[in-house]
Amino acid sequence: MAPKNRPPTTETAVSEPPISGEFDLIRRLAVLFGPAPPGVVRGIGDDCAVLEDGPRHYLLWTVDTLIEGVHFDLSYTSLHRLGRKALAVNLSDLAAMGGEPVAALLSLGWPPSRPLSEALDLAAGLQEAAREFGAPLIGGDTVKSPPGLNLSLTLLGRVPRRELLTRDGARPGDLVWVTGPLGEAAAGLEILRRPLVVPEAVRRPLVQAHLDPRPQLAVGRLLAVSRLATAAIDLSDGIASDLFHICRESGVGAVLEAAALPLTDALRQVAALLGRAPVDLALTGGEDYQLLFTTPPEAAAPLRARVAAAALPQPAVIGRLIPGDRVWLEEAGGLRDISGTGFDHFGGVTAGADQE
Amino acid sequence: MAPKNRPPTTETAVSEPPISGEFDLIRRLAVLFGPAPPGVVRGIGDDCAVLEDGPRHYLLWTVDTLIEGVHFDLSYTSLHRLGRKALAVNLSDLAAMGGEPVAALLSLGWPPSRPLSEALDLAAGLQEAAREFGAPLIGGDTVKSPPGLNLSLTLLGRVPRRELLTRDGARPGDLVWVTGPLGEAAAGLEILRRPLVVPEAVRRPLVQAHLDPRPQLAVGRLLAVSRLATAAIDLSDGIASDLFHICRESGVGAVLEAAALPLTDALRQVAALLGRAPVDLALTGGEDYQLLFTTPPEAAAPLRARVAAAALPQPAVIGRLIPGDRVWLEEAGGLRDISGTGFDHFGGVTAGADQE
Repeated sequence: MAPKNRPPTTETAVSEPPISGEFDLIRRLAVLFGPAPPGVVRGIGDDCAVLEDGPRHYLLWTVDTLIEGVHFDLSYTSLHRLGRKALAVNLSDLAAMGGEPVAALLSLGWPPSRPLSEALDLAAGLQEAAREFGAPLIGGDTVKSPPGLNLSLTLLGRVPRRELLTRDGARPGDLVWVTGPLGEAAAGLEILRRPLVVPEAVRRPLVQAHLDPRPQLAVGRLLAVSRLATAAIDLSDGIASDLFHICRESGVGAVLEAAALPLTDALRQVAALLGRAPVDLALTGGEDYQLLFTTPPEAAAPLRARVAAAALPQPAVIGRLIPGDRVWLEEAGGLRDISGTGFDHFGGVTAGADQE
Repeated sequence: MAPKNRPPTTETAVSEPPISGEFDLIRRLAVLFGPAPPGVVRGIGDDCAVLEDGPRHYLLWTVDTLIEGVHFDLSYTSLHRLGRKALAVNLSDLAAMGGEPVAALLSLGWPPSRPLSEALDLAAGLQEAAREFGAPLIGGDTVKSPPGLNLSLTLLGRVPRRELLTRDGARPGDLVWVTGPLGEAAAGLEILRRPLVVPEAVRRPLVQAHLDPRPQLAVGRLLAVSRLATAAIDLSDGIASDLFHICRESGVGAVLEAAALPLTDALRQVAALLGRAPVDLALTGGEDYQLLFTTPPEAAAPLRARVAAAALPQPAVIGRLIPGDRVWLEEAGGLRDISGTGFDHFGGVTAGADQE
């Protein structure tokens, strides 16, 4: 049975203007795929897709792919750590929506030039993270991939309906919070890539932030259960870019205070070696996998109390939401528009003004 | 927080014997990942993972990756067709378990050398298949992939608990059925690869079988609802290999009748040009995406009646199950052991005797 009315292959390419980057592509895909069907609460545009799961729960569903030479380099990470990180990256998306893991599937593309037995190292890292974070690996698929190793992980999670965290509930006046230090993974990557010679006390936490990020599942659940957060996202592309997602989805603007950004001494030392401002590393460095979230000001005290009671690290207030649609950085020199500045997977670091 | 007790990276590689192929790898991964956790009915070892979904349904979940240069070649397929096929391959896994699609997520690795606008051609093909087969695309992820295009699709489906089709219910005496002609996709691939000059009436159906396979969702649902099948699998690696999976999971052997295999004239013509026996192309050619299933003999008449009532093509009986653990081919010359002969993703075509 031949498919009916197939349009010519080049039609789209001819009739559409060129795509300017990842976000433009995602926007156009969302238009092409149309509105979410019944039973699907959210599709494109949040950390996970959200599906109805009985009368009181949602199913959260995400997929991420890591590609050799783009997302990892086996000259400075082990297969074991790569396995851990692949699961952590998926779990971070789940944490941002307040969910608990159900299970994960692995699709592994393996280069024939590499002994198959090494796939067990990667699997052992995955399994270690699966136990640590309660996300059992229950199956998948292996294929040959001569151009290099790649792995896709898909993860299912669950959240009670009333606890779902999304990107679109933030309001002017809300505080902007982050769960931990910024720019660490970006600095760690620079140490590995160049490589930079730095004291072990500087090197270790930064390299670990890049190679072995920790998904913020516990604080995600705390925010979900307490219902104190108005919006949340995980930091994968850099805070300027990821906060801009919240602003766009919620219809608000934001002012970040440069002086309030949690920057460690280790980060400052590496920034100095690189000749870069620590704040810029923090704003545009990807892969922090901390949670960025917003709350009304009156939620600050109860939130701090709950975080203390759970013995979790205290999050930091780094700014506030305002009317409008831009993200501003407040520095000694005044206000700077950083809307959408960050890591575009197809364009590298982008300037804020060009993004939209 | 550092992970505790991380084993040295090379431990597994040193202590384990080398892995002999894809099936051995999957077997070892299953051991490593351990038994399925509560709520997970089936993990590794069937077409989809199966999770509980309320008191009366199961959720079916699968992921597949297609890699440029391994699973497709853009010199002879269009991005539009590739999009269609990516979804069809996933849907075939769902069909084999009797399920209906719920939704799909795309993880797209895109080479920066290719205009991003062409990603919309691929997406349009995906969307066309999504509409045709009722499997809405609801989200995903895009990443840069300099070594070449790759796409992972993950699919969720649903099936009433009592209708689930699995690989492990076949019994000696059961009939072995297939839903359509065998070896077509393998012959189509040979036409494209070499390329072979053949009449258009030969070329078109075979090339289409390879480039644009049709998932057997309707007959999968018919088998599920009627509860006439004792086991089912989709034909991705070739019938000798895929029937062997049913035999292993069910604890049975099988005899296939060479003369009963549904082979088209088009397939026979291409086999002649290639100097190969048509039966061998049918047994070891991958990507047929027909369903292979088993029923008790007394189910044959009611099955044929239901298939006719649904106006679906009649499946063919191609053999029977016997006690034992081998798959035999009955030819004019006698019996041949073809257990597990087929496409190993890491080893190419394997000999039956070496497989286990």
